[in-house]
Amino acid sequence: MCGIVGVVAKSNVNQTIFDALTVLQHRGQDAAGMVTCEADRFFLRKDNGLVNEVFRTRHMKRQLGNMGIGHVRYPTAGSSSSAEAQPFYVNSPYGIALAHNGNLTNTPDLREQMRKENLRHINTTSDSEVLLNILAHELQQIGKLKPTHEDIFAAVKAVHTRITGGYAVVAVITGYGIVAFRDPHGIRPLVYGKRETDKGTEYMVASESVALDIPGYTLVRDIAPGEAIFISQDGDVHTCQCAENPKLTPCLFEHVYLARPDSIIDEVNVYKARMRMGVKLAEKVMRERPDHDIDVIIPIPDTSRTSALEMAHHLDVKFREGFIKNRYIGRTFIMPGQTQRKKSVRSKLNPIELEFKDKVVMLVDDSIVRGTTSKQIVQMAREMGAKKVYFASAAPAVRYPNVYGIDMPSATELIAHGRTDDEVGEEIGADWMLYQDLDDLKDCVKAGNDSVTSFDASVFDGQYVTGDIDEAYLNRIDAERNDDAKDGENKPGSNENADLHATI
Amino acid sequence: MCGIVGVVAKSNVNQTIFDALTVLQHRGQDAAGMVTCEADRFFLRKDNGLVNEVFRTRHMKRQLGNMGIGHVRYPTAGSSSSAEAQPFYVNSPYGIALAHNGNLTNTPDLREQMRKENLRHINTTSDSEVLLNILAHELQQIGKLKPTHEDIFAAVKAVHTRITGGYAVVAVITGYGIVAFRDPHGIRPLVYGKRETDKGTEYMVASESVALDIPGYTLVRDIAPGEAIFISQDGDVHTCQCAENPKLTPCLFEHVYLARPDSIIDEVNVYKARMRMGVKLAEKVMRERPDHDIDVIIPIPDTSRTSALEMAHHLDVKFREGFIKNRYIGRTFIMPGQTQRKKSVRSKLNPIELEFKDKVVMLVDDSIVRGTTSKQIVQMAREMGAKKVYFASAAPAVRYPNVYGIDMPSATELIAHGRTDDEVGEEIGADWMLYQDLDDLKDCVKAGNDSVTSFDASVFDGQYVTGDIDEAYLNRIDAERNDDAKDGENKPGSNENADLHATI
Amino acid sequence: MCGIVGVVAKSNVNQTIFDALTVLQHRGQDAAGMVTCEADRFFLRKDNGLVNEVFRTRHMKRQLGNMGIGHVRYPTAGSSSSAEAQPFYVNSPYGIALAHNGNLTNTPDLREQMRKENLRHINTTSDSEVLLNILAHELQQIGKLKPTHEDIFAAVKAVHTRITGGYAVVAVITGYGIVAFRDPHGIRPLVYGKRETDKGTEYMVASESVALDIPGYTLVRDIAPGEAIFISQDGDVHTCQCAENPKLTPCLFEHVYLARPDSIIDEVNVYKARMRMGVKLAEKVMRERPDHDIDVIIPIPDTSRTSALEMAHHLDVKFREGFIKNRYIGRTFIMPGQTQRKKSVRSKLNPIELEFKDKVVMLVDDSIVRGTTSKQIVQMAREMGAKKVYFASAAPAVRYPNVYGIDMPSATELIAHGRTDDEVGEEIGADWMLYQDLDDLKDCVKAGNDSVTSFDASVFDGQYVTGDIDEAYLNRIDAERNDDAKDGENKPGSNENADLHATI
Amino acid sequence: MCGIVGVVAKSNVNQTIFDALTVLQHRGQDAAGMVTCEADRFFLRKDNGLVNEVFRTRHMKRQLGNMGIGHVRYPTAGSSSSAEAQPFYVNSPYGIALAHNGNLTNTPDLREQMRKENLRHINTTSDSEVLLNILAHELQQIGKLKPTHEDIFAAVKAVHTRITGGYAVVAVITGYGIVAFRDPHGIRPLVYGKRETDKGTEYMVASESVALDIPGYTLVRDIAPGEAIFISQDGDVHTCQCAENPKLTPCLFEHVYLARPDSIIDEVNVYKARMRMGVKLAEKVMRERPDHDIDVIIPIPDTSRTSALEMAHHLDVKFREGFIKNRYIGRTFIMPGQTQRKKSVRSKLNPIELEFKDKVVMLVDDSIVRGTTSKQIVQMAREMGAKKVYFASAAPAVRYPNVYGIDMPSATELIAHGRTDDEVGEEIGADWMLYQDLDDLKDCVKAGNDSVTSFDASVFDGQYVTGDIDEAYLNRIDAERNDDAKDGENKPGSNENADLHATI
Repeated sequence: MCGIVGVVAKSNVNQTIFDALTVLQHRGQDAAGMVTCEADRFFLRKDNGLVNEVFRTRHMKRQLGNMGIGHVRYPTAGSSSSAEAQPFYVNSPYGIALAHNGNLTNTPDLREQMRKENLRHINTTSDSEVLLNILAHELQQIGKLKPTHEDIFAAVKAVHTRITGGYAVVAVITGYGIVAFRDPHGIRPLVYGKRETDKGTEYMVASESVALDIPGYTLVRDIAPGEAIFISQDGDVHTCQCAENPKLTPCLFEHVYLARPDSIIDEVNVYKARMRMGVKLAEKVMRERPDHDIDVIIPIPDTSRTSALEMAHHLDVKFREGFIKNRYIGRTFIMPGQTQRKKSVRSKLNPIELEFKDKVVMLVDDSIVRGTTSKQIVQMAREMGAKKVYFASAAPAVRYPNVYGIDMPSATELIAHGRTDDEVGEEIGADWMLYQDLDDLKDCVKAGNDSVTSFDASVFDGQYVTGDIDEAYLNRIDAERNDDAKDGENKPGSNENADLHATI
Repeated sequence: MCGIVGVVAKSNVNQTIFDALTVLQHRGQDAAGMVTCEADRFFLRKDNGLVNEVFRTRHMKRQLGNMGIGHVRYPTAGSSSSAEAQPFYVNSPYGIALAHNGNLTNTPDLREQMRKENLRHINTTSDSEVLLNILAHELQQIGKLKPTHEDIFAAVKAVHTRITGGYAVVAVITGYGIVAFRDPHGIRPLVYGKRETDKGTEYMVASESVALDIPGYTLVRDIAPGEAIFISQDGDVHTCQCAENPKLTPCLFEHVYLARPDSIIDEVNVYKARMRMGVKLAEKVMRERPDHDIDVIIPIPDTSRTSALEMAHHLDVKFREGFIKNRYIGRTFIMPGQTQRKKSVRSKLNPIELEFKDKVVMLVDDSIVRGTTSKQIVQMAREMGAKKVYFASAAPAVRYPNVYGIDMPSATELIAHGRTDDEVGEEIGADWMLYQDLDDLKDCVKAGNDSVTSFDASVFDGQYVTGDIDEAYLNRIDAERNDDAKDGENKPGSNENADLHATI
Repeated sequence: MCGIVGVVAKSNVNQTIFDALTVLQHRGQDAAGMVTCEADRFFLRKDNGLVNEVFRTRHMKRQLGNMGIGHVRYPTAGSSSSAEAQPFYVNSPYGIALAHNGNLTNTPDLREQMRKENLRHINTTSDSEVLLNILAHELQQIGKLKPTHEDIFAAVKAVHTRITGGYAVVAVITGYGIVAFRDPHGIRPLVYGKRETDKGTEYMVASESVALDIPGYTLVRDIAPGEAIFISQDGDVHTCQCAENPKLTPCLFEHVYLARPDSIIDEVNVYKARMRMGVKLAEKVMRERPDHDIDVIIPIPDTSRTSALEMAHHLDVKFREGFIKNRYIGRTFIMPGQTQRKKSVRSKLNPIELEFKDKVVMLVDDSIVRGTTSKQIVQMAREMGAKKVYFASAAPAVRYPNVYGIDMPSATELIAHGRTDDEVGEEIGADWMLYQDLDDLKDCVKAGNDSVTSFDASVFDGQYVTGDIDEAYLNRIDAERNDDAKDGENKPGSNENADLHATI
Repeated sequence: MCGIVGVVAKSNVNQTIFDALTVLQHRGQDAAGMVTCEADRFFLRKDNGLVNEVFRTRHMKRQLGNMGIGHVRYPTAGSSSSAEAQPFYVNSPYGIALAHNGNLTNTPDLREQMRKENLRHINTTSDSEVLLNILAHELQQIGKLKPTHEDIFAAVKAVHTRITGGYAVVAVITGYGIVAFRDPHGIRPLVYGKRETDKGTEYMVASESVALDIPGYTLVRDIAPGEAIFISQDGDVHTCQCAENPKLTPCLFEHVYLARPDSIIDEVNVYKARMRMGVKLAEKVMRERPDHDIDVIIPIPDTSRTSALEMAHHLDVKFREGFIKNRYIGRTFIMPGQTQRKKSVRSKLNPIELEFKDKVVMLVDDSIVRGTTSKQIVQMAREMGAKKVYFASAAPAVRYPNVYGIDMPSATELIAHGRTDDEVGEEIGADWMLYQDLDDLKDCVKAGNDSVTSFDASVFDGQYVTGDIDEAYLNRIDAERNDDAKDGENKPGSNENADLHATI
């Protein structure tokens, strides 16, 4: 998962992009990057690290210009190396820089086309570099010295026909403007907004509406699936449907975990959706165990607190913040002659003993992926003296890999892969395992916008809306992930060498 | 406010001290430091920054030894400069390093004594350096080649007679062990705990009990007011009451805001105390406006959430997290030719509009100090469409400066200084201002340990338990603070030059 | 002036390129860069700073591959900004990285062609980026998936027809090999050499033969003017004359100052050439003042020592190292409230008083450019008690700007511009000013290789061998230099912001 | 070997100390440090690295005050760890910071006294920390609130009676001034000078007179053996002979290699002394082989050039700079899977082949220590085609360790230890080995100041002027060096962890 932003304004955009990226930081803490454009010149800065680590005063001073794009990265299947920060840049034609959130599912074919047919060199394993070169090639084919917005939309149309997957893209073209587009299924979110100033109207596109809020932009609307928006350097806005058969099937997991609660995605308020997940969980409790013995509901912070509070309220059970999250990240140093000690979950969560002591506790998390942390938390609850430990997940069981840009482990590492809900409960040591029903989860989101009728729910049901994902594909990415794991490159935060590599 | 820790263990203590400091990081993000002791040698590392910025692998490798102390700093009146990180060190006698949380109220006299009578040079404005030299001088007076624990306690006794204020101190003496002590009023907290290992029992003293939890230590008990504890290098523990008339009057503000909710201070569970503050607020609402029209209670995250939730529950009013806190810190860069733009409160808190729209909202904060943020938040609530905006503070009005180690602004900068509660409400623009009553607040804490009968509540009532604070003193620190403010040195995070200065 | 190197070897080339760049460091201390190529991937690292500052272990670990190129930069007219380190990279076609030493004289036209006709974006003011894009465009025109060496030479031929100036170029093409070429006048030097290993023959091209020496390569020969050499990834070597009317007119200033004495350029041993300059100076002394009163000859270190020693020997006058060079560079810090104090020449050179006291001294320098340092040195000699101070320059008066890649000041800043030799002497305060005659200087070089019959001596005689330099051109670069000077970007070492900018 | 400086001026001294340290950098490139004193406060900065690496603008801004001291370090026997940069600091009494050049020969006894009798903790292995504490203790014994210069000289006298060895010391006492003193044998050099300004006279003490030259100070005179100088904060100067039986026996090796040629030590011009060494070598050639066949004399740069040139002149043989020194330091990176390749001497010196080809060459070096480099150079000369290779050393054979502060290897590592001169020649592969005679060397120095009648020539003759060096002592330091070598701490430049350790 990543976060993207693009701004065309009436004065320097570096601070606005910085602010937007900071607000989108939850979408990726691995790397950050920004390109601004002044006159004919690009200014690029990207590196591994948090936004406020990557951009210091000395860097910001260089980021001149009234338009630009930004990116925060969480490594995904196709661009997992620590050295491939975005945006990427090509100088032919025009000078184009691009950043993207999502994942292409036909990257290998595209790479081959690039090399053999288009003679373009792709230097990294990032699918964003591929995507940029396809866009560049299509613009080059049109071959105009001064492309119009129609030319640019024509290129986007051609891009849509060549690539598949889930993607939200923003690109800046030197001297022309910013173009952004969303895949024909609208899997990944993308919105745009505006801000009025004395000098005229300024525009921003971003992964989430919160990125608009902080710098004082107002949400105009979501970019539709398949739609492209072009904002010229002067602030003229054009939009165009560039896909053949667009259909909105947004990613359910954005609402479960990825997005900030104060975001509005496809007109659905994420905070409200999460509250509804709590209500639905409460209803399921009453369906399954109307005479339950839950003494207290305890969220596993932070995301699940919204659902857990509503669940407690609807069950009329006490709600307690039994775990305090350690906000400051610890670290385990390996001293000479020592071996790595396993860092317990307690370095992240500290339980308040008296909230557990002699009680039947219902722990609530937003979802369960690998299950290793859940298991440790259940055990910690027992050590604190809980009589029974129940575990609720605001999302259904995660059983399938994600191929549209969320960095999930491969199927075999998912605790629910090949296990029933109850078997997961046993595995993590819970006395009762309560998973949200998938239809309930969908209803929670639909309730915010009933025009959204279907979803990418692939991690729950194994259905891939792009229609091109088969067993072979899944096996291949599974293998790649394992290879990556072997040489350790895949780990977020392993950015030791990033500063240099990012330069090409 | 600061956090301190001391450990005597059976193997290297650097990781344990690092972990403890990380957990205590909320007590000071300004600077961090550690001294470990192996054989006859001290290893010191201190610098401005967060714990995990100050200590990198290359530093940790040097921090050898089975005993040591650590410190995180929030600048206080007497040591506000960005360059005076702790621990401090003197080499005569023995080699002693010391760190402290609190503030001495007779520093100028002590400085003069040091210079003229003891010929000791104090190089910084930190009262910790003064305190260290007093302890060192008293030990030197005893003059033993090998001091016993009785000698060390005798020195602590002498220290208590010379200094006044609120202080929790930890010091390490090369080749002997660690001594820690708490001021005779027990204003600042100090606990100790132990951990059993194959090689024997290990001991830790720390500002808060959470520091014990994460590395797996168990709380033994609070250090009593005036008491000292000496843990020899070999792990022998001795305690001794070193003050004449000790009396426990702990700082109320620890429970209001400073301490982590999962800490237990003077046997009072902080989380529970904060829940009780919510109950008391609800009761006050019902006393004052039994037919109130509150639609929703919204906490101002993070601290007040505990009180606000309980308040809502007891009023049977909806509780909503209407503000989302931006976890990733933004920053405003000043570009050439620009002037600093004021960063709005929105860069820290983002409101969810629909929780405010057309509602009567009761905002809850733990306390109000300067009031500038409160004012902006009230305004933001109105902009989101709130019909009425009420404001509750879980603590009474803060009207007086703190002289025991909490970095509060001077009296004139406190919004409640010279204002009634209602006038504060007007000033911040609230339709109703609800302050906790001081007796209620005391009851919230006492309810956890009825043997605690009095408190340092000076910021609320202007009563200073040490008995040495007069108008002249308050005027002097007021002037000092203003001077500091002028040259900008006082700001946490302004650590540009810190790396070097810390070296002496 | 810059230094370039390219290596095709049988194992990782990063260390070899590092070593070669270190040896070429005298040609540019402003920035350094390296691209290596493994399989289909480029690894680029470039930044402002010395070679051993730019390349740390963490960077070197990334520089994989058996072929690569490197660059050290001294800023020149066309690429003076501190942010435009080389090599540059384009990804279409193939992936090409290029570094160059020299300066193109028709850059503005080329830029316009690139943008309008070839739709290629040039992001910096560096003529190297222009040169790379021309080469890339020409290769793209040929349009082969797998270009042969003939294709590459064809592209180089096309490049020669489009560009004018003095240039020595090295480029690496992903998956194919390294191509290097020298301008049709052979103004800038370029050699190649080889090294036998167990795995086969390895090849290096470099600006100077010393770069071959240290890593153990043997000089094969100079690249001829207009000639190109292609070394395939597998080590096959092809050379081809790619220019229409090549004619060797090498830069005289390389022998005067730029090159290392242990280099051999166009078969001329630089050390020997400099010795001959001393002989010629002695002869001129005897011609002009056969009964001179010189007591001692003192070189201004380091370059002139070779000439001065020989001059002393031929005059049978004492030779003394009267100035000791401060090897460790000082620096003047500006403290708050201070203004910059002018750093005297003494921070660079310290005189030994007794070598000057009551003597007639002949100071010898390799050349005089601005003359400010010479003036200070003459004055210092007087302050040390010299009876008379004479000044000899091993090169003739520098009166015209350089347009082929040497960073000389503009004409108006040259002390000899518009002045006779004697007037220069007056200006610097010398009692006798002795300039080498231009014909003598040429003879000094010719004596090493009589097949070299003409030279680029433009800084001495104002004759520009490329034939395209007119008054308008000189006026334009003069203006540019002044503009650069204004915003301070032109100063070598002002690399404050360099780390980021280099990334595009 | 180290370099020290102390300044009492009328405005900030940080720049002057920086300049002086830069000029003294040849005496130690391992670490640098500075303490300045303003009012009652010390500002200390020290770290491993070159002067201009350790002191950046942000550090210099902190170094306030009109008096201060500085130090550059080359690790010596007693303080070899990379973490023990100077100056050192104690705060009792007064606040004293001290830096020193030399080595104490009774450190272990002193350490024991400090710990047991004076209860002072010595945290490092540096004898400078010991020396500082002795001085501090002696001042504390006097016990004045305001010490007079007589008090300070009394303390220095006491110091002289307690310590033995070779030492030049500078210390600053907060609020009082600077004291500097030289050991009773005057082994290590120390001078002082002054500079007139509008605000009054400023004073500097320094290891070498060149440190005075660059900032514009004038040499007053050498500090006599055993003498102390005290310069009060206000600029009053007092000197006093503080030793019982002072006798000047300066270190011969300063003239051979350590000092800069432009320095004047004990009134001897070093450059002239080195010229005389060349004359003496020439005379020895004529004594030994009046009909020698030397074709050319080639110095091994840089130090020996002065002697070699004079030698050539007196023999009337050609002098050629056959080796070019690589000024920019290379480095060998170890790539994963590689083992360290031995860096050949060629990475430091590049031969000019034609100066060797078919010639009988006499190589000249200042001295031979381990001999490994000499051996490689001889071999390189042969590879370049020399007919015969002779080798001259401007100093006699180095056969004994140094105990007065020069970092020489232990006896067993010295090539001449246990070998005759001819055997050394054989060992390094020279056809003729020509060592300077010790009496000749002494004469070369005496010729500059005939009042200097004896020397510390211990590395040549094994006579230690302090009279306390016996077999046991030499064996002990030999063992220590080997221990150091084992854990790699002894290597200059291995400063990986230095930044932290320096803080205590």
